[in-house]
Amino acid sequence: MVLHHATWPEVEAYLRRSRGIVIPLGSTEQHGPTGLIGTDSITAETIAREAGALADALVGPTLTLGPAQFNLGFPGTVCLRPTTMIQVLLDYVQSLARGGFRKFYLLNGHGGNLAPAWCAIQELHADRSLGRSGSESLDFRLRSWWDLPEVNALRQQLYGVGEGMHATPSEIAITQHVLPAQHRPDTLPAPPGLSPAFLKFHAGDNHLDADAHRAQFPDGRVGSHSGLAQPAHGQALLQAAAQAAARDYAAFLAGDPA
Amino acid sequence: MVLHHATWPEVEAYLRRSRGIVIPLGSTEQHGPTGLIGTDSITAETIAREAGALADALVGPTLTLGPAQFNLGFPGTVCLRPTTMIQVLLDYVQSLARGGFRKFYLLNGHGGNLAPAWCAIQELHADRSLGRSGSESLDFRLRSWWDLPEVNALRQQLYGVGEGMHATPSEIAITQHVLPAQHRPDTLPAPPGLSPAFLKFHAGDNHLDADAHRAQFPDGRVGSHSGLAQPAHGQALLQAAAQAAARDYAAFLAGDPA
Amino acid sequence: MVLHHATWPEVEAYLRRSRGIVIPLGSTEQHGPTGLIGTDSITAETIAREAGALADALVGPTLTLGPAQFNLGFPGTVCLRPTTMIQVLLDYVQSLARGGFRKFYLLNGHGGNLAPAWCAIQELHADRSLGRSGSESLDFRLRSWWDLPEVNALRQQLYGVGEGMHATPSEIAITQHVLPAQHRPDTLPAPPGLSPAFLKFHAGDNHLDADAHRAQFPDGRVGSHSGLAQPAHGQALLQAAAQAAARDYAAFLAGDPA
Amino acid sequence: MVLHHATWPEVEAYLRRSRGIVIPLGSTEQHGPTGLIGTDSITAETIAREAGALADALVGPTLTLGPAQFNLGFPGTVCLRPTTMIQVLLDYVQSLARGGFRKFYLLNGHGGNLAPAWCAIQELHADRSLGRSGSESLDFRLRSWWDLPEVNALRQQLYGVGEGMHATPSEIAITQHVLPAQHRPDTLPAPPGLSPAFLKFHAGDNHLDADAHRAQFPDGRVGSHSGLAQPAHGQALLQAAAQAAARDYAAFLAGDPA
Amino acid sequence: MVLHHATWPEVEAYLRRSRGIVIPLGSTEQHGPTGLIGTDSITAETIAREAGALADALVGPTLTLGPAQFNLGFPGTVCLRPTTMIQVLLDYVQSLARGGFRKFYLLNGHGGNLAPAWCAIQELHADRSLGRSGSESLDFRLRSWWDLPEVNALRQQLYGVGEGMHATPSEIAITQHVLPAQHRPDTLPAPPGLSPAFLKFHAGDNHLDADAHRAQFPDGRVGSHSGLAQPAHGQALLQAAAQAAARDYAAFLAGDPA
Amino acid sequence: MVLHHATWPEVEAYLRRSRGIVIPLGSTEQHGPTGLIGTDSITAETIAREAGALADALVGPTLTLGPAQFNLGFPGTVCLRPTTMIQVLLDYVQSLARGGFRKFYLLNGHGGNLAPAWCAIQELHADRSLGRSGSESLDFRLRSWWDLPEVNALRQQLYGVGEGMHATPSEIAITQHVLPAQHRPDTLPAPPGLSPAFLKFHAGDNHLDADAHRAQFPDGRVGSHSGLAQPAHGQALLQAAAQAAARDYAAFLAGDPA
Repeated sequence: MVLHHATWPEVEAYLRRSRGIVIPLGSTEQHGPTGLIGTDSITAETIAREAGALADALVGPTLTLGPAQFNLGFPGTVCLRPTTMIQVLLDYVQSLARGGFRKFYLLNGHGGNLAPAWCAIQELHADRSLGRSGSESLDFRLRSWWDLPEVNALRQQLYGVGEGMHATPSEIAITQHVLPAQHRPDTLPAPPGLSPAFLKFHAGDNHLDADAHRAQFPDGRVGSHSGLAQPAHGQALLQAAAQAAARDYAAFLAGDPA
Repeated sequence: MVLHHATWPEVEAYLRRSRGIVIPLGSTEQHGPTGLIGTDSITAETIAREAGALADALVGPTLTLGPAQFNLGFPGTVCLRPTTMIQVLLDYVQSLARGGFRKFYLLNGHGGNLAPAWCAIQELHADRSLGRSGSESLDFRLRSWWDLPEVNALRQQLYGVGEGMHATPSEIAITQHVLPAQHRPDTLPAPPGLSPAFLKFHAGDNHLDADAHRAQFPDGRVGSHSGLAQPAHGQALLQAAAQAAARDYAAFLAGDPA
Repeated sequence: MVLHHATWPEVEAYLRRSRGIVIPLGSTEQHGPTGLIGTDSITAETIAREAGALADALVGPTLTLGPAQFNLGFPGTVCLRPTTMIQVLLDYVQSLARGGFRKFYLLNGHGGNLAPAWCAIQELHADRSLGRSGSESLDFRLRSWWDLPEVNALRQQLYGVGEGMHATPSEIAITQHVLPAQHRPDTLPAPPGLSPAFLKFHAGDNHLDADAHRAQFPDGRVGSHSGLAQPAHGQALLQAAAQAAARDYAAFLAGDPA
Repeated sequence: MVLHHATWPEVEAYLRRSRGIVIPLGSTEQHGPTGLIGTDSITAETIAREAGALADALVGPTLTLGPAQFNLGFPGTVCLRPTTMIQVLLDYVQSLARGGFRKFYLLNGHGGNLAPAWCAIQELHADRSLGRSGSESLDFRLRSWWDLPEVNALRQQLYGVGEGMHATPSEIAITQHVLPAQHRPDTLPAPPGLSPAFLKFHAGDNHLDADAHRAQFPDGRVGSHSGLAQPAHGQALLQAAAQAAARDYAAFLAGDPA
Repeated sequence: MVLHHATWPEVEAYLRRSRGIVIPLGSTEQHGPTGLIGTDSITAETIAREAGALADALVGPTLTLGPAQFNLGFPGTVCLRPTTMIQVLLDYVQSLARGGFRKFYLLNGHGGNLAPAWCAIQELHADRSLGRSGSESLDFRLRSWWDLPEVNALRQQLYGVGEGMHATPSEIAITQHVLPAQHRPDTLPAPPGLSPAFLKFHAGDNHLDADAHRAQFPDGRVGSHSGLAQPAHGQALLQAAAQAAARDYAAFLAGDPA
Repeated sequence: MVLHHATWPEVEAYLRRSRGIVIPLGSTEQHGPTGLIGTDSITAETIAREAGALADALVGPTLTLGPAQFNLGFPGTVCLRPTTMIQVLLDYVQSLARGGFRKFYLLNGHGGNLAPAWCAIQELHADRSLGRSGSESLDFRLRSWWDLPEVNALRQQLYGVGEGMHATPSEIAITQHVLPAQHRPDTLPAPPGLSPAFLKFHAGDNHLDADAHRAQFPDGRVGSHSGLAQPAHGQALLQAAAQAAARDYAAFLAGDPA
């Protein structure tokens, strides 16, 4: 059930059977010469909705803006300050907690969202730990779709080192499948490869400022061979992600450790 | 052109012919027993995209959350603090200004967004007036779609006093047209009518706190006879709104007074 | 009763018969070549005190600073950030609510205060809606003195199109009556007229940044023929405003819709 | 010259001969059973205006709200959070600095304003020290009127130990002189005396929370024998304060050490 | 060189040969029944100072407070809000950047610091990307000492699964070596083991609120068999960490990828 | 007992006999050509720990950063914004109040900390006064070590006018005693003397911006003849300060007026 497509009596009825909700986290930023600026939002939202359908979970509206200052050298990028994103998440969660929600599953599509989302979760817990919130304990699971083991295996199998870090063929393939009319041809050569150390350290999009980042990655791709993407891959990745996320969400509701 | 469906080189090309962008402002809140919780976001986004197509305007991602504390007594409502929304708009506009945008047309779908949006505009101007921004002068036009004269005439003609203030038949009709699968039957009687003084004073959704508001408006409708909505009305309203907004945007770019 | 001229036992006694208070909202900004920089504060404070005398209402201290960044190109203007004004109003109201006040009538003298005042009201309600305030429901009425119907009729009758938008003859006339020693002669010609669309759109002082605003309105008047002001007009306007505000306040206390 | 009673061309002319301004800092809080709630604002404003007349100094609008949480147990008290007051002062000073002011003389009437005012001054300097302000160096002098040596001598001579700390006969005497119609008779006995250690430590109104403070000082006076106040004292204190502040301001403009 | 033990002319001389600095990040929170509350600060500071000596690096003062709301159920724990820590890091870095520092190596001793530190780094970059900082590009490396490969290998070798997540024998061993007088005997049994999924998901101390956390981990240890710690292990761990961090820092200065 | 060297069960036991804690406030800033950048932190921490040992008081971690913008012209100085320091103190105190602490003795080593510390104390009280904190009344004593009467007498006796204001021989002597390895020889001539008016007005480090401050005090000393410092003086000053602070703390716990 998609919250935007529901009525309040339907949400009231849902709350009698579940206290959980899925919240997709996206971004609005360049994804290389052929990837869509909305890639992170489109993938997170689509996976969340398909997973929600599988798991009978309510799916809230996608946060389409996230921290992306490193991409501000490419026009069309929009960047929330991390502190702004933290405040947005506080308001989002506190509103739903007021209505009775207790378990928040954040389905993430943008590495740069991870740090502020973790901060927001700790701020929300701190409110209660310091006696400033009247609500019961809240619970959170934050999961990037590419980190779900089944998805991770599939994208490595499909693209190997070409997957890279930003404007990845896997995320672009999903948008090709979801929005076929927006499929740009891509004959770009593979960009320079990234070392495992780089990949590990920059997980979470811990990049430099906008001028330095564009100088380092002139076409916006960070080690990703976007031209490998194909709509059929996208369909498979979407299916794998939705199923894995639905299982992960069910385990979260059941109280299983992450 | 929809920003989420564009690539950065396409935005770069767009900026060579225009410095303008349309930003839809929505909300996530109850719209009565049969209206969708996403009504304000769906209407603003749809009108903005159709207007953008008519006016060759880039359309940014919709802000789907806005201040709506008065509706927190109805589950499913999400409320941004006004100060949070102000900060989100600062980040959104400053990011685009960095890339070269100068003229921001805010197409609004939720009365409660007006006050924080005006505040954000003045904060952005204040930055420059106090010498804290290196950017050129920015320009803004904030317009609620129902205030466009052609739309206002049409909704009065279709619904008269039944239009009311919240969960209006006009906004619901648009969602019926855009999302026919989400059309809920509605045989609710007309709610109590509102005085012109009430309508004037509460413009901008200046309502009471959540408990008081639900006590005052028990099913969530504020004077609106939602059952009058029909998909064909929605089509006509959407067309009128898109054409009027496209003209208004063109006049804004041309420097005509609002 | 003026709060600054009262003692705490007198306020304690007042609270046994009323939970209401009038708070004047002013500004400190240029008002054309002959209007006083304190015009908005002087008018709001004077009207509030006379209305308070008529309605047996306590009148709090005037907020003499408001958002006015567009006037920063004219020296002597002071501008609060909208977010600062929101915070000031939160502190002001929460302090009084702690003491037992429940009904806050904001008598406004500056268009630029409207958006932040509405935001502050919604923030205050949100506190209670989200369970973060132990106080009872609060109630607010925000009224610009020139919008009171009797005043609006009178100023149109006196000045017609010459009333304009900023440095209006009606506000200047009130200051001439209240502070005769500060009456500057004014033989300025009428400024260029403003379209109804301009007047509607810029209500609430939604102007450009300081450099652009001074370029657009070089002497600071926005469509207002300040030279039409006369002290006798001011006396009549003040009387009309005080009586109308007193009635409006009484209706507010009585729970009548605005 | 009083800023509220000036026009912008007059301020422009003033700036050609001086870069200085006097800003009165007041408060809105109980002052014992017979002292006015506006005492701190009335005294600071009156002294500032008389000093301004003597020194040809522009006098800005009084900040009538300050931190006063300890007095919230007495109704009618209004308290700004210290962080709110800091932000108000930043906006006030940055606005005037934009117009060309460089030397800010803060004439203080409330001990609780001292700490936030010092913080604001350091925040303003920090902006420049960290390269975030385009303005020239600013300069500040913060002076409580009772600390001016001539005033301090006079109030000790008039009241000795009866002067105390809050609702002092000296501040009440000034209000009696300035607002004779608001003179309440006062036959209260002297309150318990305060030790020199208490007076030194609690300078700056470093008191406890509101419940504890009212329990400690049940009628609101802090060691002050308010009944000693007489209007003639007020006249003498006002004259001494205005002359001393005018000299102090002139020395400040001349660059003499404080 | 330790900043606190240096003079400003010595720092000025240092800046002529290096633009780098090491900043230790600690915490103040319970570390089980026998671990010291300052464990995270003591380990980070000691390793940073030894690494600094090896690498001729300046070492700034340790941030001894970090986000630790989950441990507030154990007295003695102090928790910074994540947003507070972000602001502290902004001030810390901007101050040093003003003086000429460009390369900031954050040596971390507390998992809960990672998310706010990443946010702070992105906020600092965003300042420059949005044209709000006059400084040159800054560069950051954030490294938890236990993640340095040599340290990670050693602690796995010493303790295996007993290392756990909080109040780890490795961190306690270092404090035993550094502060032998503070060595508490520990005969606690091993706590329940943690699944690899738990370890991965809760990396960065993404724990529940304080009540829930203490219920889950009643003595404060999170899967760590603290009793395995020995001072000699601590010496070896410290040496390994200092050498690895010194090499990592040198590579950072040299521009090598992380 | 030093909090960093304690375990949580030890703190739990301590709380059964005392609700008090000592918190040292330091700074990180230049102290002239021969004084250590950590002087204020080293002195506050050492005195606090010795006083804590005498008074059986728990001593929390030192805040090593404070507002010091005026010293940013000397490299190595780190400056917290006053508003940042206020927030840090709120978090620090609220965390400890959650665990049961009620009496907070702030042992200060840096004049610039006084204003923000007073603000933080009033903010903490305001929380309770406005009904936003569930905790009991808190109590604070803020004391700069040099203001303790015995210390003040000793430093005047030792150095007279040479004590000055910043980089004082007394603070440097303490660091010479505590850290003999860091003792720099100092043959600097006495700096220009300061007037009593300067000393009084600039108490609390109310200095100008960084450029102006360095121009005024080119080697960083503010009227202090640092070369008079001797380690034996430091030992005597430390002993006097620790004994006086221990007595002052005991009086604070006993409820004696400051």
